[in-house]
This record gives sequence, C-alpha cells and structure tokens, in this order.
Amino acid sequence: MEEKKKEELEWRRKTWKLVSKVRLESPLIQCITNFVSMDLMANTLLSAGASPAMVHSLEEIHEFTPRVSALCLNVGTLSSSSLPAMIAAAKLCSQLDIPWVLDPVAVSASSFRFDACVQLVQFKPTVIRGNASEIISLSSCSLQSSAASMGVDSTHGSMDAVEAAKLLAQTSGAIVAVSGATDIVTDGNQVVGAHNGVPLMQKITATGCAVTALIAAFVAVDKSHALDAAVSALAVFGVAGELGMKMAKGPSSLRMHLIDSLYGLDEATLQSHVNITSLC
Amino acid sequence: MEEKKKEELEWRRKTWKLVSKVRLESPLIQCITNFVSMDLMANTLLSAGASPAMVHSLEEIHEFTPRVSALCLNVGTLSSSSLPAMIAAAKLCSQLDIPWVLDPVAVSASSFRFDACVQLVQFKPTVIRGNASEIISLSSCSLQSSAASMGVDSTHGSMDAVEAAKLLAQTSGAIVAVSGATDIVTDGNQVVGAHNGVPLMQKITATGCAVTALIAAFVAVDKSHALDAAVSALAVFGVAGELGMKMAKGPSSLRMHLIDSLYGLDEATLQSHVNITSLC
Amino acid sequence: MEEKKKEELEWRRKTWKLVSKVRLESPLIQCITNFVSMDLMANTLLSAGASPAMVHSLEEIHEFTPRVSALCLNVGTLSSSSLPAMIAAAKLCSQLDIPWVLDPVAVSASSFRFDACVQLVQFKPTVIRGNASEIISLSSCSLQSSAASMGVDSTHGSMDAVEAAKLLAQTSGAIVAVSGATDIVTDGNQVVGAHNGVPLMQKITATGCAVTALIAAFVAVDKSHALDAAVSALAVFGVAGELGMKMAKGPSSLRMHLIDSLYGLDEATLQSHVNITSLC
Repeated sequence: MEEKKKEELEWRRKTWKLVSKVRLESPLIQCITNFVSMDLMANTLLSAGASPAMVHSLEEIHEFTPRVSALCLNVGTLSSSSLPAMIAAAKLCSQLDIPWVLDPVAVSASSFRFDACVQLVQFKPTVIRGNASEIISLSSCSLQSSAASMGVDSTHGSMDAVEAAKLLAQTSGAIVAVSGATDIVTDGNQVVGAHNGVPLMQKITATGCAVTALIAAFVAVDKSHALDAAVSALAVFGVAGELGMKMAKGPSSLRMHLIDSLYGLDEATLQSHVNITSLC
Repeated sequence: MEEKKKEELEWRRKTWKLVSKVRLESPLIQCITNFVSMDLMANTLLSAGASPAMVHSLEEIHEFTPRVSALCLNVGTLSSSSLPAMIAAAKLCSQLDIPWVLDPVAVSASSFRFDACVQLVQFKPTVIRGNASEIISLSSCSLQSSAASMGVDSTHGSMDAVEAAKLLAQTSGAIVAVSGATDIVTDGNQVVGAHNGVPLMQKITATGCAVTALIAAFVAVDKSHALDAAVSALAVFGVAGELGMKMAKGPSSLRMHLIDSLYGLDEATLQSHVNITSLC
Repeated sequence: MEEKKKEELEWRRKTWKLVSKVRLESPLIQCITNFVSMDLMANTLLSAGASPAMVHSLEEIHEFTPRVSALCLNVGTLSSSSLPAMIAAAKLCSQLDIPWVLDPVAVSASSFRFDACVQLVQFKPTVIRGNASEIISLSSCSLQSSAASMGVDSTHGSMDAVEAAKLLAQTSGAIVAVSGATDIVTDGNQVVGAHNGVPLMQKITATGCAVTALIAAFVAVDKSHALDAAVSALAVFGVAGELGMKMAKGPSSLRMHLIDSLYGLDEATLQSHVNITSLC
C-alpha cells in the first residue's frame, strides 16, 4: 500500500514535469495526418505549448523532417498519394533517432490501410496509439473483416487488448498505448494504466488523433522515457477532459473546455487529478 | 383542420422514432466530402449517435463501402483525384442497394463540377440535398453562369425551387431536399416542408453539408422511407439550431450549442419543436 | 498632436466603412488554402459578411476564378498537386486585375515551398501577409535553415521585419503586412501600424490564415486602396480578438468569441477599439 502510494506520487511528479517541459521547450511536432483531425490536433498541440507543423508533402520531407522534435503519423484518411510521404518521414526519423508516433486509425478498414500500417511499423515507431480494436487488429496481423470493427470506433474495451498490446510491443519494439475507459500503455513487459478522461470524449471527432499528437509532444521532450511520456500525455489529456466536463453541456462545448483546460492546467490541479497505476 | 393536426402529430412521432433508431443502431456512415466540412460533419454524426467514417481513397472503396449503412457524397472541394472514388462508391451503393445521399455543393461553379454531379446522379442517389440555387441548376441541367450563383450560398429562396425539385426527383428517382427558410422535400409528387431552423445557421460554414450527413444517417436506419427520413433529419437539425440559438451570441457559439443540443435532444423537446407540414 | 488625432479618427472612419461595405456587398472570396485552416477561414469570412468558396481544383480555376471578387492563396499544406492550381489562379487574377492575397506560411520549411512562394510573387499579389520570420525570409530571398524558423510560429517580432517588409513591397509591388504584437503594413514607403489583438490569438491555429482571408475580403471591396484595406482588416480582426478575450477562458473559447464578436461588431464598439497609427 505504501509502495503503491509512493508510485502514484511519482507519476504525478513525472507528469507535471513533462507538462512543464513541453511548455518550456515548445517542441516542433510534424503531423502527417487525416483531414478531419488537423484542426483539433494543431489546437491541442498549441494549447499544450508545442509548435505544430502540418507539413505533409513528399517534396518537403527530406528538408523538414530532420529538424523536427517528433513526428506524428495518422492514417485516418490515408491515400496512395499521402502514403509515400509517411514512409519517407518515418524512415528519416528512424535513421536520425527522432521519436515518432503512429496512430493506426481504422486499421482494418481495408487491406490497403492494413498493409500500410504494417509497413510503417517496420520503421520502428517510438509509440503506437490506437483503440482496442485497432491494436488487436494490428497485433494479430490478421485483417478483421466484421462490419463492427471496420470504422474508427472501437468495439472492444481497452482491457481486452492488454495481451495484444504486449505482443505488439514485443514484436515492434514500440511502446503501445490503448485508449479506453482506462488507457493502458505497455513496453511489452510492464503495463501501466491511466484512469483519467470522461466517456463523452468519444463523441468528439479526433480526440484519439489529438492525444496521439500530444504523446508525440511529450515523447519529444523526453525521448529516453517513451513509456512515461505516453502515459503522462494520456493522463493529461484525460484530466483536461475531466476539467472540461465540469463546464460542458454536450460534446461540442466539452471540446472547447477541454482545450481551454489543457492550456490553463496548473500543477496543483493536475496533481490532484492524475490517476496512473501499474497494472502488472 | 383535424386532418392537418393528425398529420403533424404523425410527423412528430416519426421524427422521434428515427432519432431513437439512429442512437440505438449507430449506423456506419461513410463520407467522401470536402475538406472544409469534415469536422462539422463528423461531429454532427457523432452527436446524433451515428458512426462517421471519412474513408475517401479509391484503394479502400471496394472493401469498405459494401459494409457501410449509408454513404454521403459531397462535391464541395471536388478534384480529379477525388471524383473516381466518389463514382466507385456511388456505383457500389447502387449495386448493393445501400442508401446514399448526394450534396451537389456549388454545382454551377464549373462545368467540371456540373458534369461530375450529373454523372453521379446516374448512380441513383437515394436523396439529393442542396440549396435552392443548386437544385435549380442541377434540375435544369443547364450550367448557370451568372456570378451570383457561382458560390456555395444560395441566391434563391427554397420555395422558388419546388418545381425544379419535383422535376429532378422525377427524372432521377431520388428524393430531393431543398434547404432554406422552409426546407422542402419531394419525391416528385408529394411535397413536404420542414419549418425548423434559424437564419444564423447560414453564417456557419458546412451546416448544409452536416445536415446532408444527418440525412444519410436517418436514411440508413429506414431506407424504405427515404422521404420521411430526409424530412425528419432536416427538422431535427433545425430544432437543434433553434435550441442552440437560445444560448448563442453569434455564429460560432451557435455552432457549438447546436451540436450540444443535437446530442442532448429528448422526446418532449423534440416533439414540441418539430414543425413539418404537407405543402402539396 | 492635432494631426495625429485627426489621422486616427480618419482610420476609424475608414475601417468602419470597409466593414460595412463587406457586409453590404458580400464579396465572393476564393481560397486555395491549407487543410488546417479551411474551417476557421470560411467561418471568419462568413462572420464578416463575405462569401467564402474553397474552390481549389485546377479543373475549375479557368471558369471560377474570373468571377470572384478576390483570391486568397495560402501555402500552409502546399503540395505538387495543389501548386499548379495556385499558379493558374494567381495568373488569372493578375491578368484580369482581380485583387489577390498571398500567405507564405512557413515559407522556409523547404526549398520547394520557398521556390513556390517566389514564383507566386511574380504574379503580383495585391497583398502579402505573413509573420515576421516569413516576411524576412521571403524578402531576403535566402532560405533560412535554422530549425527555429522552420515552423509556422514566428521567431521574430513584427518590428524586426519593417525593413524587410519595405524591401519586399518595393521589389514585388505588393502591399506587405506583418502580423505581430503590432501588425505593420507597408507599400514600400509608408508604414502603418495596427495595434489591436491579444497574445492568446497565437495559441489558436489558423488565426494568421484567417486574417489573410479577411484582408482579401476587405481588398475586394476597395481594391484601389489595398494598404487601407489590409490595415483595416488586421485592426478589425484584432478588435474581435480583444472583444472575444473579455469572455474567453482559454484559446478555444477565444476562437469562438472572436468569431461571434466579428459577426456582431457595431460602429461604436469598433471605433472605440481601433488603434491604427502611422509608424513612418
């Protein structure tokens, strides 16, 4: 019990340290992402103190990507014209030891998308973040074909995905994060849970994409501790959602208050809300 | 008079039934749409209880589209690279009897766009929704060339478009909906009017696109009554606008309150606001 | 002193006149812009009373662009597929004497982007608007390669860019506007400062893009006085930010209140807030 309490205090301290570091260093985060989420992702990064850059042209990757602090790839509206830029950017990050994060949105929507994600994983993402259905699909490397798992909304709870996440972490070398009622994060061995957030966040488009971008910003300022950074980003976004929920009257006002809360987050409020625990 | 009152009560009952059905079944709605409206369309669908999927790559259509509950096509930022995906998806829906909805945004902006819309109509959309200028142009099959009708904003009132809408419905086999102060919907014979909504909704970008997506969600859960579904979706969106207007201080807060109101809509509030009547 | 006061009164009068003219004439503004900013740009234009059209396909330019009141080009997510449409549209505007505005977002992000901006400048934009880093880069015609100036966020204050802006105005023939704590606008000779706005606007993505679109709307209704139009648009947007700030609790609520305020702006409020002065 004493041990557990000590651990929780340690997580609170770490989380605030990372929030402060992002605000101080304002890391440049390149996002090659889907068209639905660009606005929320950019605003999430700005509110957290990072500097977003939605640079996605193949022509620009070789000059731009080497200078970013982290990269965030998201396949939500993948096409044959955007995939080469993603591959080029992932490759460069892998070569240059720049942290990068993969969001395999609706990975089972098509074999085109599934194959693209499998290919991107070869370039060693620092973190992979998805919902349970996405992580289970990507981990099993078997294309799910039921209609229920085709879309962007998960049909599994995050706890169903623990073993899949561990396996994916082991095979890919990435930290794997699964969003859900409890967000779980694993390096293939350790499993940590972030218990923040509110259910209504799922009724806002692109919250998943936005938290992946936030993970990129956190990893950018502490790349040698990617698991801690990923857990912290998920917890911080969840706390912003909890604070926003106090003022929200529905999903659209929640979106606004979440971003405002992320911007205004102070140490005492964050520490009194962060709820991170070891799961195994 | 008695007859009229009975009819109005019937519409209120139907509308609530459809709202409930969308929330219960959470139909998967594929949108191939313009870049301006993706955010509002996805959030409108989520708030209504549907599951949006902005899957627009030609590579994904053959696997993804057969599994969706309905498709929404919108030509707002049409290009030669997006048109083939739209055609492929429309064709599949037509073959597989999946309902689909066409939004001919600014159809008169160019002959490229006009021809694309005419071509898409061949694949038998379940519903076509536009403003009066768009429906008049598409119905007449004659390219409007006056500057006034080039943009996305209508230069005609919806009542001016009744005959054009009936003609388009007859020739295309689609239900045709015309947004305006009164939204009118016709199957080429019957004409129904939804009198909900507030003028300020026109000062929010993509409200037209969003209501078309909502029509797709309603048609998805009652595809054998597409006229009823289209009228109901228009009325529900209008009611959400009326409720939002009570709290709004301008177009941007209206947008937020509209989405919140759509999410929170209950039976009593909906039924006391819905205003649908037969026009002829 | 008397002279200065008279000048300030003159600016207030001009600014309100332009606000009224945009509302009255509702100019059609074509935007070929980045995917992040489309929503905010369209909503800014609608709130100001203009009619936005995000028509960006090469196939549509030759028919659509000749009929617009002004064009706004923004290279924020430039690609090899979007550049030809920008060039075609800029060329047409130049030939047809239609005012057009260039936003060289993150011009130093890559040589591809830099070269594109240099090429676009050849087609004689009426106004070029950027932040200090962007204007300095474009003016010097030398690719900045430090990481600090790669992104969309400026690493220079606007006053550092006065000489660069004057030089760019002289060589390009454009009015050059530099956003910052004080927005500066120059024709290469005269330099005017607009001192409106609040720092938090920088924490909202696409506010720069949005004010460039507003400049296009203002220039559209008074194309023979492009400097006045640019200064006025910057001041009006800044005033909307100041008014919004009174109700905002963070960047996301500021965005909402800014747009609401722009829509509701009345003569007395505008005139009591506008702060424009000659700088040299």
